[in-house]
Amino acid sequence: MTKERLYLFDTTLRDGAQTSGIDFSVNEKIVITELLERLGVDYIEGGYPGANPGDTEFFGEKRTKQALFTAFGMTKRVGRSASNDPGLQQVLASRSDACCFVAKAWDYHVEIALGCTNEENLDSIHDTVSATIAAGKEALIDCEHFFDGFKANPDYALDCARTAYQAGARWVVLCDTNGGTLPDEIYHIVTRVQEVVPGAHLGIHTHDDTGHAVANSLAAVDAGVRQIQGTLNGLGERCGNANLITLIPTLKLKNAFSSRFEIGVSEEQLKDVTSISHAFDEILNRSPDRQAPYVGETAFATKAGIHASAILKDPKTYEHVAPEVVGNQRRVLVSDQAGKSNLMGELARVGIEVDKSDPNLDRLLALVKEREAEGYAYEAADASFELLARRELGEVPRYFDVNSFKVMVERRFNAIGDLITVSEAVVKVDIDGETRMSVAEGNGPVNALDMALRKDLGKYQTAIEGLELIDYKVRILNGGTGAVTRVLIESHDTKTQRRWFTIGVSPNIVDASFQALVDSITFALLKADLA
Amino acid sequence: MTKERLYLFDTTLRDGAQTSGIDFSVNEKIVITELLERLGVDYIEGGYPGANPGDTEFFGEKRTKQALFTAFGMTKRVGRSASNDPGLQQVLASRSDACCFVAKAWDYHVEIALGCTNEENLDSIHDTVSATIAAGKEALIDCEHFFDGFKANPDYALDCARTAYQAGARWVVLCDTNGGTLPDEIYHIVTRVQEVVPGAHLGIHTHDDTGHAVANSLAAVDAGVRQIQGTLNGLGERCGNANLITLIPTLKLKNAFSSRFEIGVSEEQLKDVTSISHAFDEILNRSPDRQAPYVGETAFATKAGIHASAILKDPKTYEHVAPEVVGNQRRVLVSDQAGKSNLMGELARVGIEVDKSDPNLDRLLALVKEREAEGYAYEAADASFELLARRELGEVPRYFDVNSFKVMVERRFNAIGDLITVSEAVVKVDIDGETRMSVAEGNGPVNALDMALRKDLGKYQTAIEGLELIDYKVRILNGGTGAVTRVLIESHDTKTQRRWFTIGVSPNIVDASFQALVDSITFALLKADLA
Repeated sequence: MTKERLYLFDTTLRDGAQTSGIDFSVNEKIVITELLERLGVDYIEGGYPGANPGDTEFFGEKRTKQALFTAFGMTKRVGRSASNDPGLQQVLASRSDACCFVAKAWDYHVEIALGCTNEENLDSIHDTVSATIAAGKEALIDCEHFFDGFKANPDYALDCARTAYQAGARWVVLCDTNGGTLPDEIYHIVTRVQEVVPGAHLGIHTHDDTGHAVANSLAAVDAGVRQIQGTLNGLGERCGNANLITLIPTLKLKNAFSSRFEIGVSEEQLKDVTSISHAFDEILNRSPDRQAPYVGETAFATKAGIHASAILKDPKTYEHVAPEVVGNQRRVLVSDQAGKSNLMGELARVGIEVDKSDPNLDRLLALVKEREAEGYAYEAADASFELLARRELGEVPRYFDVNSFKVMVERRFNAIGDLITVSEAVVKVDIDGETRMSVAEGNGPVNALDMALRKDLGKYQTAIEGLELIDYKVRILNGGTGAVTRVLIESHDTKTQRRWFTIGVSPNIVDASFQALVDSITFALLKADLA
Repeated sequence: MTKERLYLFDTTLRDGAQTSGIDFSVNEKIVITELLERLGVDYIEGGYPGANPGDTEFFGEKRTKQALFTAFGMTKRVGRSASNDPGLQQVLASRSDACCFVAKAWDYHVEIALGCTNEENLDSIHDTVSATIAAGKEALIDCEHFFDGFKANPDYALDCARTAYQAGARWVVLCDTNGGTLPDEIYHIVTRVQEVVPGAHLGIHTHDDTGHAVANSLAAVDAGVRQIQGTLNGLGERCGNANLITLIPTLKLKNAFSSRFEIGVSEEQLKDVTSISHAFDEILNRSPDRQAPYVGETAFATKAGIHASAILKDPKTYEHVAPEVVGNQRRVLVSDQAGKSNLMGELARVGIEVDKSDPNLDRLLALVKEREAEGYAYEAADASFELLARRELGEVPRYFDVNSFKVMVERRFNAIGDLITVSEAVVKVDIDGETRMSVAEGNGPVNALDMALRKDLGKYQTAIEGLELIDYKVRILNGGTGAVTRVLIESHDTKTQRRWFTIGVSPNIVDASFQALVDSITFALLKADLA
């Protein structure tokens, strides 16, 4: 049986840009377009030329090599001709291959938002499609509020879809604009729409307001649509759009879809999906979702317990797909009950090869167990784990020693009578037998300590130039004031774009922070050595 | 038409505890149980008594008032009787109302993991259910790998389900353990299972490995199951379990479900769902997902653009549900009315009655908004919220003033050559115009400050005798060392058994801790006054 082609339409740069707190620069749009081409989507909707200077500039050049470069716009205004609508003309004049115009498909909105007749809106859809084709571009119509519109007035919603199709639109896209439609409704309504537009010309555009953006997209495909609109990591207004990073592996790997459909993403490209997803989060400057389907850090992680030993025997029976095919990794978490084979798996993951019979391995295992009993959680601190392991295997140079520090926090009235709090730290660092003393102020004791520590590391200073502390978490274990404090620090190197986590445990929060800070700097130096 | 009852089974404390990086203390389990009872779930699975000391301690008392308190365990071991299986007996001996036992339902796992015959596994299911009923408890069987098992050997999977049901299990729960099953398969397999077990006795347990945990749960309900297992905020192993916080609003608000089913969550409780979701994230010490369906900060946010003005005209046409019904807020239109009635609800919750026309209410609302913009999260700190509110309403005496403190942390070699870290705090407290100066050591700066603060409060000393700090959480908002630190402190009074949360926000962690400590002491004094 020949497989049908299913098309992927990415709207990260358009609907994704509607996300609260997101504002792409032209340069970011260029980088994201490259990521999308690596992924293998068919359409890249780059923005709305004419709506703002950035989008206009972005569409001043053709930005894609493989994918159809798509401009977004609104259908022709009522009361003037297509050639006389400057907004429409600007979209058509952009260096795009295709244009996707949003049209009202709910009669209530035609009346309230456009203030025109239903017939005038249909004319606008028709003329916009004709003008697009006349401009030598592929035409797409996004039918806004299609599902809510269909429920209110099915005939009119169908009229809109039919008009777009009959005017020559390559795709008529059914949008669940408010995101409140459930999969069954999507399926039934899409089935009805095919009385007027063939499925091969229908697209689906969903939002995640009930957690069904992915399920709704696939329900629509089941019902007959052949184009899916979505975004990287489900970016998008409110709760986000359909997540292409989740959809693509399902389309490629799940028999219900892979046996019937072909998409533009190859097996090789599928292996890149985890890396593309994480790279996109880097651009957004946010931590990747650890629990994301397929690509999350813990998507293939199993905590030592009833499943862990079985997974080592036969991973297939405890994994719905193999992590390698999406470029992810199995993680049997190093924790309390970690056995030697877990440990070896974790070592291999951080790039340490060691023979199973190496006696250091037993010592390391005992040490990990001892540390975890004290409160260390190496599953959350890869860099501290790697340092611990490499130290036991005798590989980490002693770059510097800090034998004493002093941190002071004082709250008092200043000279002009304001209540202020000041923090100051002094550290003594020994490097190659020479003692260096640094002092720094910070907006808190840990910040002051961090500043003082990194102020003068002599010959190592250049290696830590790009280092920054990007997150800091504290947890009290066992509860109570007498308990142990666990500090987790996330660091980032602006030069290598590497991120890592280190950990410190102590009854004293400053001491625990100090351990994690020293581990973080040591890890940066080690990676610079290895590079 | 009478609505059918649909039951909600929460497994946050059991399957949720399998999440990488999660490790609940007994105290956290108690607090989460209270949240779950506020939410209105029917079953609270609290853990696995006997598997670790924490779970055993947790099940030493009955912890629920409304929900059935449920213990998790494994079915009887093959080769011994139920009465002779100490693991099983420990689960049955716990102070639970119901016991949920996981059983293999895939013949491959019976062979590989249990190493027994298919028949022996069925006997084990049967005897476990019988022993549970004989112990006077409700019996549930989790059929592990049910869907994968069904695909491999449908007859045996059905045998397992039938055996559990015929032995008297109240619920036979179909588990998609690996999380790879899609909604259509769930629907069809659940339909088949009803040939051997009535839907009124079937439950569904899904994971989010393809982003379908919620959709799969609802597909199973459509097909006939009447119990849904899930977790708060979709916590759980790998990509997480079905998210009850997403499911509950859909079940209550979407006609496809609300017209057919009733759940144990009232309309009033539904209004609490956003606050419960956020409070749970605070307990986990992580930022709430801004894009979470229904409860996310941006779930009802619209960026200024093509929708914003229309939303102001008629929100219903751009919102699939009204944000108020789930206790969330529209973010375009900052509705003071909605804000004020939310606030009155919160005040009523902490026992403050105030007239709607009271002008102090507007001032308090403005203050809360201002504070929350700075990083305060009053949802997670009832005591600080109550103090803020009572202060604005003019009711909190100024018990004491602390205008200066000094905290010092020093790491150095001591007289016998050991590396030690010492913390010391000095505070000056003014009470009735008299200054008292105290100094104390602690195992960290916050502990030292806490000790010094509570050392001599003069006439108030007896009122704070039973006070203890039982948990301390720190979070950096906005990331980076230059950002703001939020400290949450949980306090406990051993005399009254009261527990409360206070909050402090500052760029300086010691300052933020100080605010939360002072609030905690003030709250204790206020409650002693009111008592």
